Amino acid sequence: MSKVLSDIEIAQQANLEPIVKIAEKCGLKEDDLELYGKYKAKISFGAIKRLAAKEDGKLVLVTAINPTPAGEGKSMTTIGLGQALNKLGHKTMIALREPSLGPVFGIKGGAAGGGYSQVLPMEDINLHFTGDMHAITAANNLLAAAIDNHVHQGNTLKIDVRRIIWKRVMDMNDRALRGIVVGLGGKVCGFPREDHFMITVASEIMAILCLAHDLMDLKKRMGDIIVAYNLDGNPVTARDLQVDGAMAILMKDAIKPNLVQTTENTPALVHGGPFANIAHGCNSVVATKLAMKMGDITVTEAGFGADLGAEKFLDIKCRFAGIKPDAVVIVATIRALKMHGGVKKTELTEENLEALENGFANLAKHVENMRKFDVPVLVSINKFITDTKAEISLLKKLCEDFGVDVALNDCWAKGGEGGVEMAEHVLELMKTKKTPYKPIYDEKDTIPNKVAAIVKEIYGGDGVIFETAAQKQVKELEHLGLDKMPVCIAKTQYSLSDDPELLGRPAGFKITIKDVRICSGAGFIVCQTSNIMTMPGLPKVPAANRMDIDENGVITGLF
Amino acid sequence: MSKVLSDIEIAQQANLEPIVKIAEKCGLKEDDLELYGKYKAKISFGAIKRLAAKEDGKLVLVTAINPTPAGEGKSMTTIGLGQALNKLGHKTMIALREPSLGPVFGIKGGAAGGGYSQVLPMEDINLHFTGDMHAITAANNLLAAAIDNHVHQGNTLKIDVRRIIWKRVMDMNDRALRGIVVGLGGKVCGFPREDHFMITVASEIMAILCLAHDLMDLKKRMGDIIVAYNLDGNPVTARDLQVDGAMAILMKDAIKPNLVQTTENTPALVHGGPFANIAHGCNSVVATKLAMKMGDITVTEAGFGADLGAEKFLDIKCRFAGIKPDAVVIVATIRALKMHGGVKKTELTEENLEALENGFANLAKHVENMRKFDVPVLVSINKFITDTKAEISLLKKLCEDFGVDVALNDCWAKGGEGGVEMAEHVLELMKTKKTPYKPIYDEKDTIPNKVAAIVKEIYGGDGVIFETAAQKQVKELEHLGLDKMPVCIAKTQYSLSDDPELLGRPAGFKITIKDVRICSGAGFIVCQTSNIMTMPGLPKVPAANRMDIDENGVITGLF
Repeated sequence: MSKVLSDIEIAQQANLEPIVKIAEKCGLKEDDLELYGKYKAKISFGAIKRLAAKEDGKLVLVTAINPTPAGEGKSMTTIGLGQALNKLGHKTMIALREPSLGPVFGIKGGAAGGGYSQVLPMEDINLHFTGDMHAITAANNLLAAAIDNHVHQGNTLKIDVRRIIWKRVMDMNDRALRGIVVGLGGKVCGFPREDHFMITVASEIMAILCLAHDLMDLKKRMGDIIVAYNLDGNPVTARDLQVDGAMAILMKDAIKPNLVQTTENTPALVHGGPFANIAHGCNSVVATKLAMKMGDITVTEAGFGADLGAEKFLDIKCRFAGIKPDAVVIVATIRALKMHGGVKKTELTEENLEALENGFANLAKHVENMRKFDVPVLVSINKFITDTKAEISLLKKLCEDFGVDVALNDCWAKGGEGGVEMAEHVLELMKTKKTPYKPIYDEKDTIPNKVAAIVKEIYGGDGVIFETAAQKQVKELEHLGLDKMPVCIAKTQYSLSDDPELLGRPAGFKITIKDVRICSGAGFIVCQTSNIMTMPGLPKVPAANRMDIDENGVITGLF
Repeated sequence: MSKVLSDIEIAQQANLEPIVKIAEKCGLKEDDLELYGKYKAKISFGAIKRLAAKEDGKLVLVTAINPTPAGEGKSMTTIGLGQALNKLGHKTMIALREPSLGPVFGIKGGAAGGGYSQVLPMEDINLHFTGDMHAITAANNLLAAAIDNHVHQGNTLKIDVRRIIWKRVMDMNDRALRGIVVGLGGKVCGFPREDHFMITVASEIMAILCLAHDLMDLKKRMGDIIVAYNLDGNPVTARDLQVDGAMAILMKDAIKPNLVQTTENTPALVHGGPFANIAHGCNSVVATKLAMKMGDITVTEAGFGADLGAEKFLDIKCRFAGIKPDAVVIVATIRALKMHGGVKKTELTEENLEALENGFANLAKHVENMRKFDVPVLVSINKFITDTKAEISLLKKLCEDFGVDVALNDCWAKGGEGGVEMAEHVLELMKTKKTPYKPIYDEKDTIPNKVAAIVKEIYGGDGVIFETAAQKQVKELEHLGLDKMPVCIAKTQYSLSDDPELLGRPAGFKITIKDVRICSGAGFIVCQTSNIMTMPGLPKVPAANRMDIDENGVITGLF
């Protein structure tokens, strides 16, 4: 090909099959679907219940080394691997997160894979899709409005307005909403207080959607959300405000998984997309478990690097869902490994074997980590045009010397065909006898012990410092009996430590926990290492500025 | 029937036909549709273009007297009349506004008709429907984020942060967002400024959606939106911020009309729902014009009373769309007329002929008003169980003495059957020879003259006072050459005047204009008579509190 096509051009040239046909391949009838146009559908809980009797297929988790700001191509690799397994004659499903509008219009652009390994229709998936994000926004903000309204209307629950922890959300990158004062304007506008918005994917409701088993579980969990503390210091929940029923009504369709297809017509469930820092960063339990019923193999992914996404996949999602992957694929790029080896961002296109060898330590640590969960591991090198032969050979040799299986992945340029080598390795790996579920910590342990276990085993750090405020928060959760849940650590994705500048495989560092808060609906305790930005901002030239649509509805500038 | 069923119970017992079948009746093929589940569909512009060649059917506008807070049943009457006309063998379409989530969870509840005259599936229509509201929210807030981001990133357009007029929106009743300060938190959070949110239906993008002819017209109009003034006093538009393309992408599906059906399987287009005060309060031009191609008769409605909704329908929507109704139905209830005759809200269930006779003046004025637009008029009495025989006889006689046609309407209890009398009268009326379009004012006239014309002819007032700020705003719009557009007066719906306490047919009053602002994308000038609340609040016990959903997905408490 003389011209390299953009993701959206490739997407627009793909031959989509009607989603009803795709559903047929998965054992679904038209009646099991709620169509959203010709190429998207929600799957009814009737169908989910019917398929529950089937045996589970195998599960492959795709994760990555600590990424560069552009990402290492996890979604693309997940899709490509799924396509390759299908090509090899295995009935394969893909389970992915759904994108958020904020990043689409900000720096990152879309999040539906890339090149010849995309989920389609990419425009719709990157935009409103089937409305799940909007439903979460609405349910979240109904609860927020109910809180301020309750206070305004007499506050019989004695909500302490200084301790309202529930935040409004918007599915947009809008830095002006990071710090606001609400309730100004006098008596008819309520009581003034400091507040801030988060982006929708940071809402606890998103985390709940992704962990709930069905609509009733979702409703129960939303009722459990602690939204504030009262003047006696006791938690006030969404159930206390009597809006859990209305919130569940808003979420009645969002809880149903979305069926789409890839560029090569492989079926994919794209459902739920929580932040990988203040939440657990993987698609819904409903979608993953359903995919495992529909396919002989399911390929899924977890956000950010393996220290964040995969750790939470294995310690939180698998714990709640009662599942365990049969294999883990760690995606690495030579560019990123060179960065971990000390090369500047601007010099990554030049060959640098020494830096690659140094940077390999980051990959090696993630391989070690995954093995602590007792899962077979494969390294997948996501090929870039700038990778030299010498670099690829060296990386393969480093992997072999380290004793980890490795395969090249050219799924961006070649689709499933580019993932066949990787798929064959995965099939081989999955012949390993499956061992029982093995998390890193016992959820019944204390919060400090749970965090310490992750820091020691996964991050490779020396210890944990809880700042004074965090110590108080731990005490309070212990006092309320709310400390016996998994912990969800929010930290930078760029480093194994909590310092984004410490690349490679840092040692001798401590992790500092600044804030500990309960997500009692989701069922985990968030421990923040720094002030994690829950509302991104737009860059100087937002991706939105180059987007357009013509009179035929053809979109340009979305990628 | 021994038990009076609630709206949602009636809705859940209705026999819905697949929307594909309903579409067939309208001359549409399955390929013309984008299905949203089995009972909702968007209609493609391909189909709209194909049908454009057909001749227009007749158009009936349903409006009302000045309403009580509960509303007079306009949507219900519109649906019932459509069903009745169908019953009489006329191929009839219904065109309605779509509800907003805010009122659904607040005081009002749903807005999809009532009793045996509803559009279905009422749960979906009242909740996320096909996502149009959410698309508007997203497009609106992308623009808002782009403004603050532009200022933050260097402000090359020299936007005067004291004169940013574009507001963020949320589809929720949330009084705490009526007065806020944004941009707090230091350098990374932008520049602090006062701001407020509006409810989504108050967004200019909603007005634009409802007036645009197609996607390209929508994009052009969104580009024209004035979002702020720069330090030189010149307008800054969405196009200047280069986000009109991205906004159009977000709106690509929202611009397509939504097809549903009524309790009696009459096809209905439910599309767009702007506020009837700061916007023009009728469903989209696209939907109305398409309905007129698909049906021999189309029944549509306009928000609030005829002084607001119908005036804007006739002076704004018809002007832009090049249409004119063949008949106007004014809905009145005996309860509301007694209120106009001086009866207290708590005593409306008692027979009171004197009050009814006094209150008739309100209805009479609306009949006079509609006739000024040269349209045949029918009064429709929306029957309530508390109406006495004597009251109904009196009201009929008052109408006859006044020389206006009148018909009873029992569509809530009896569906189309209850609207047959009304339908027969409408059919008779429509035999009148249609006259050319006749608005109340010339849009090229000055702003004060245009407002004065409406106040004199429609409200029956003595004159207009422009407060000092409004005078300055008029001067500025004249200076910028932006004053030659229709005016959209925002005032209370409860009175013909701008004082909600002045019921009946007030005289000798003046209207005070406090604020004049341009909606250059929508193409009209909003003149506010008071501080119109663009963000409603929740009541002491919100409708949300009684809502629930069970494990079978059956919703209760929504009406």
